[in-house]
Amino acid sequence: GDHKTNDQGEPFMSIDKNRRVTIREFKGKTYIDIREFYEKDGKLLPGKKGISLSVSQYNNLKSAMPSIDKLL
Amino acid sequence: GDHKTNDQGEPFMSIDKNRRVTIREFKGKTYIDIREFYEKDGKLLPGKKGISLSVSQYNNLKSAMPSIDKLL
Repeated sequence: GDHKTNDQGEPFMSIDKNRRVTIREFKGKTYIDIREFYEKDGKLLPGKKGISLSVSQYNNLKSAMPSIDKLL
Repeated sequence: GDHKTNDQGEPFMSIDKNRRVTIREFKGKTYIDIREFYEKDGKLLPGKKGISLSVSQYNNLKSAMPSIDKLL
């Protein structure tokens, strides 16, 4: 599906009620952040559980998926 | 590529020098753990940065990838 945009103008996609993949620019590089969120005062805020992948790490994750899928 | 196996017998794939995707069983459910590792006494140990995805969250991540790819 298509993406939404957070308060910082960053595109994100939900992968569960409280988990998002957010595309973020930081110091001229792009990161794919897979993270848990929690609700506070009616807003969803990023939690500690999560990891920011570089584009090359993300591409390696994508390449690993056929092998991962066989293990599921 | 194919997977390796860690000391706990869990299959994993490297997505960078110090980052792994590990397939883990916990209380009868399967999780896909994307995590940073650090070296201590010559061993790679799991760090705090990371997230364990359920299979359904993992599948949602996979489904989101065409949209993510368009944003990169």
